[in-house]
Amino acid sequence: MKEDNFINLIKDLLPESSSYIGDDTAYIAEKDLILTQDTLIEDVHFRQSTISPYDLGIKSIAVNLSDIAASGGIPAYALISLSLPQDINEDFVEEFYKGVRHICNKYSTLVVGGDLTKADKITISITMIGFGNGVTPAKRSNAKVGDIVITTGESGSSAAGLWLLETQVKDIPEEIANKFITAHINPIPRLQEGRDIVSFCKKPPALMDTSDGLADALYKICLQSNVSMEIDFGNIPIDKDLSDIAHIAEINPLKWVFYGGEDYQLIGTVSQECLETLNSKQISVIVIGRVIESNNNPCAYVKVDNDVITINSTSIDSEGFKHFM
Amino acid sequence: MKEDNFINLIKDLLPESSSYIGDDTAYIAEKDLILTQDTLIEDVHFRQSTISPYDLGIKSIAVNLSDIAASGGIPAYALISLSLPQDINEDFVEEFYKGVRHICNKYSTLVVGGDLTKADKITISITMIGFGNGVTPAKRSNAKVGDIVITTGESGSSAAGLWLLETQVKDIPEEIANKFITAHINPIPRLQEGRDIVSFCKKPPALMDTSDGLADALYKICLQSNVSMEIDFGNIPIDKDLSDIAHIAEINPLKWVFYGGEDYQLIGTVSQECLETLNSKQISVIVIGRVIESNNNPCAYVKVDNDVITINSTSIDSEGFKHFM
Repeated sequence: MKEDNFINLIKDLLPESSSYIGDDTAYIAEKDLILTQDTLIEDVHFRQSTISPYDLGIKSIAVNLSDIAASGGIPAYALISLSLPQDINEDFVEEFYKGVRHICNKYSTLVVGGDLTKADKITISITMIGFGNGVTPAKRSNAKVGDIVITTGESGSSAAGLWLLETQVKDIPEEIANKFITAHINPIPRLQEGRDIVSFCKKPPALMDTSDGLADALYKICLQSNVSMEIDFGNIPIDKDLSDIAHIAEINPLKWVFYGGEDYQLIGTVSQECLETLNSKQISVIVIGRVIESNNNPCAYVKVDNDVITINSTSIDSEGFKHFM
Repeated sequence: MKEDNFINLIKDLLPESSSYIGDDTAYIAEKDLILTQDTLIEDVHFRQSTISPYDLGIKSIAVNLSDIAASGGIPAYALISLSLPQDINEDFVEEFYKGVRHICNKYSTLVVGGDLTKADKITISITMIGFGNGVTPAKRSNAKVGDIVITTGESGSSAAGLWLLETQVKDIPEEIANKFITAHINPIPRLQEGRDIVSFCKKPPALMDTSDGLADALYKICLQSNVSMEIDFGNIPIDKDLSDIAHIAEINPLKWVFYGGEDYQLIGTVSQECLETLNSKQISVIVIGRVIESNNNPCAYVKVDNDVITINSTSIDSEGFKHFM
């Protein structure tokens, strides 16, 4: 079942939930609550061979913090449900929680509960609770024609890191390999950037994170705002060594950049006025395109040299990031 | 890893979380938030052969509502993470959510988000958010010497229902079998009872639910309050047909009553004054014992005819409810 069909099914069955479902987070305005939940499953979202329990603890929290970042909110509390195979070493739990402690301390988030159960595969389900704290959270549906499309940093690095972890190629300088592996294992939630964008934009911005890929984020904002986008590939931040690694991997680097996923950058659309404010405050966002009319066919047109690639549901269905699926 | 060891490990690693972890719910006083999370895994907590997707939807929400009930809070929002095998029928999702809709409507709870991923086994992780709304939630550690031990209803029925489902014995009258099966599949969260007990008791009561068994609930309250209890077995509400079914099953009914689990009743300790208030308001709670000194050996002594059974960590380790583990 595709995630979009799933969301539509829930909206049909639970119409009163419609206004909450479809963003990285749900926002309960009357309580100022920002809520998000993410489940990571062994061999679907991660493999024990490519991530240590400590790093898994960090990453599990980071992906949820990234959802809060995409709303522009402030994280506060986490609940962690951990389901483990019976033969797992008890050290796993200790190392996992040390990772959790490290990142929770860094971002002032308190673990206030959870659950421990048995399972065949390691399953981690985390709920994070944040607050708008005086600011209305961003929504994917806020993009308007004329807005500027921005991002917070590099795309494709995480996919390159995963490839390096899985293939264990030896002839790439360690420093370069580690840079990509770190991008994959320890993604940085863009909390400050999200907060800055939402705080300084009087016209509410659209925002989402690139956990499922840059193409997915661009398209979802287009779809939910009923707009299209013109993106200049040359402006998308990409690590200078990415194309070398892609060459060794015999993969088109565009595939990693657009469909790799798990970079946990933010994609946003802000008004020209907001962009000027962000620039004047030296808040670092990168302009990669602009929002145009969709003519009821929401998609992102990406200019690559003299070519134009169209990102829409068809291209994402065939290329999209699917967590090993 | 035992749940108690797990909780102690988290408390050691995350000392600032200590005050939140160890009850059915966490209470964030400054935001009046009541938080709980429960994960249900196929073949650990349920089997597809013994529960329909619709009933599974109901039960998944009910067990979380029961946690809110054990705090005396008011449920409000739910996040549902559903992980499914790739070959599952799409009708499963629809039927599951129809069950969710049914019980959420009944208890004014709004589904505001969640997640859908792939997994080998059906995995359901639900977070529920409620509010104290003017009342301080109950805690397991509130029991005091001299308090009265109360419960909200029958124990053992759910275990008998599970036995009937799994063995499919034919020669038990359908009406009787269905009564127990319903107790297992459609547990009733004791929200009104929890709310009444917490609202009318000036001295904060101890409360928890019997999801992991009556013995577990009695012992956990004793342990966390450093008290003991004298329980009169004759006063514990038990369905009149339970011993007949246990006889057919060749099981000691005491095992179902104390260690069966999943009855989702509440166990509480209230002051004599509070009990009188509850009685005067015709709030139906059943007195089953009283709180006594623990002498640093917290346990529950259960008087059965002329015998006394001791419930402590040793008896629970050997007999306790372990979700198929």
